[in-house]
Amino acid sequence: MRVAFLGLGIMGRPMAANLVKAGHEVTVWNRTAGKEVSGAQVAATPADAAAGAEVVWMCVSDTTAVEQVLFGENGAAHSLSAGVILVDSSTISPAATTQFAERVRAQGVAWVDAPVTGSKIGAENATLIFIAGGDEAALARIQPLFQAMGKQVFHLGETGKGQCAKLAMNLQIAMIYEGFAEAITLASKLGVDINRLLPLIMASMVKSGVVEYKAPFVMKRDFSPNFPLRLMLKDIHLTRDAAKAARVRLPGLEAVEEVYELAAEDGHADLDYAATLTLLEKWAGIEVKG
Amino acid sequence: MRVAFLGLGIMGRPMAANLVKAGHEVTVWNRTAGKEVSGAQVAATPADAAAGAEVVWMCVSDTTAVEQVLFGENGAAHSLSAGVILVDSSTISPAATTQFAERVRAQGVAWVDAPVTGSKIGAENATLIFIAGGDEAALARIQPLFQAMGKQVFHLGETGKGQCAKLAMNLQIAMIYEGFAEAITLASKLGVDINRLLPLIMASMVKSGVVEYKAPFVMKRDFSPNFPLRLMLKDIHLTRDAAKAARVRLPGLEAVEEVYELAAEDGHADLDYAATLTLLEKWAGIEVKG
Repeated sequence: MRVAFLGLGIMGRPMAANLVKAGHEVTVWNRTAGKEVSGAQVAATPADAAAGAEVVWMCVSDTTAVEQVLFGENGAAHSLSAGVILVDSSTISPAATTQFAERVRAQGVAWVDAPVTGSKIGAENATLIFIAGGDEAALARIQPLFQAMGKQVFHLGETGKGQCAKLAMNLQIAMIYEGFAEAITLASKLGVDINRLLPLIMASMVKSGVVEYKAPFVMKRDFSPNFPLRLMLKDIHLTRDAAKAARVRLPGLEAVEEVYELAAEDGHADLDYAATLTLLEKWAGIEVKG
Repeated sequence: MRVAFLGLGIMGRPMAANLVKAGHEVTVWNRTAGKEVSGAQVAATPADAAAGAEVVWMCVSDTTAVEQVLFGENGAAHSLSAGVILVDSSTISPAATTQFAERVRAQGVAWVDAPVTGSKIGAENATLIFIAGGDEAALARIQPLFQAMGKQVFHLGETGKGQCAKLAMNLQIAMIYEGFAEAITLASKLGVDINRLLPLIMASMVKSGVVEYKAPFVMKRDFSPNFPLRLMLKDIHLTRDAAKAARVRLPGLEAVEEVYELAAEDGHADLDYAATLTLLEKWAGIEVKG
């Protein structure tokens, strides 16, 4: 298929590369110039990239970026024709998604929100999970593209429901990791060897995919960004906004939000969100070497 | 072995039954009379139960209960002789554990703290995980008893470290479940079908043993107590006390503690801790049938 891929960040670049690998005709665009994907055309603007595309796939950083890429000067919306499918793998506001989808629907364009889970490694290995909202027909048409970039697609409902579910997923990731980080901080301070605690965690019902994935990095004190703290914090803010508008109280997430904000202020925003641990350790007066 | 088993609650009773099943000579005692275990002798007091026992195993509700059972009137400590091993599978204060162990050490009695994870079902099926603190020699001697009641023993360090690790484990259980409960409350309110969200959770890194175990009960709205909310709240209080004394900040757990306190005040204390969900739903104005 002819695909315009907009946004070549940590996630977007390997995703676009996997589309090329699967034989699709890909044109890429990125906000800051100089990024490219081997085998793909490079466009100067989103509008140029989208011209002639059957599918326009976005993977940018936030709600404002999606709006800009679509409806800003030289935005992709200027060159969308009827029948095009617009797919958004960014994690953005569900409410904004509904509004944006409404605007392009007038041009005969279908919107599929398809945020992903699986981190940088999932993007590279084409093992992403897509969390999709949109109509069945549109999802069916882009199935080959999903297959080129991921291992599974979950259809959560109409346009916007993918974003809602994504927020509910990241809320859980943040809570699971915070639980782990608080637990090992407390255990360390109480004199428990974390190398003895980890096998217990992994053998019990406390076991989770999040900790299984993060623990080895944490034990090596490797906080290089797989999922940068600032992006998780952005998602937490989106979740809290959506919850507030829907009159839902999320006391756990509210507490975690403050940890992330303080950790970001402490200089960890561009590290992996796992680095929130270092703030808890600092508060506890734990000195860690390495 | 000759074992005195003190405390026949949700966990203790099936544990004592599994000791009998494995061929041990078991004498049981319970605070409120009338409870028994087929094949075990029943003693009138902890002191009577402990007389002549090689191992005294406790599984009672809290720190005060352990103190009472041991050092109160007709407490087990009155009939302990040198060489006896005292095992505590209650979840109690690590600091109190150290003090109690110190008191019985004068009598030549070794203390092993061995709180468990695995819930009522693990106690019944002898698939508990023991989280042990104590010296190697004592642990080795009671290995056959561990095997009769559980599937694995993790040795976390000296006496008291089992309790520290147990608190770190339950902290994580509480945080994982709270994340799940907040996520499904938000998703429901935003119009996402939870029956579509669950398979996504289970296929992704959000997957956890806690949610895998609890979700089916939650979907059936079955909040009968496997792990009563009031006991999880007790453990949260112990954890917060230990954290405070050690100067460790646990912002996530602090928020969760308030949810549990309010849910308990709302009449859910004797239900499973999973019932904290109903408080979040009430706050969100979600009406659930069934």
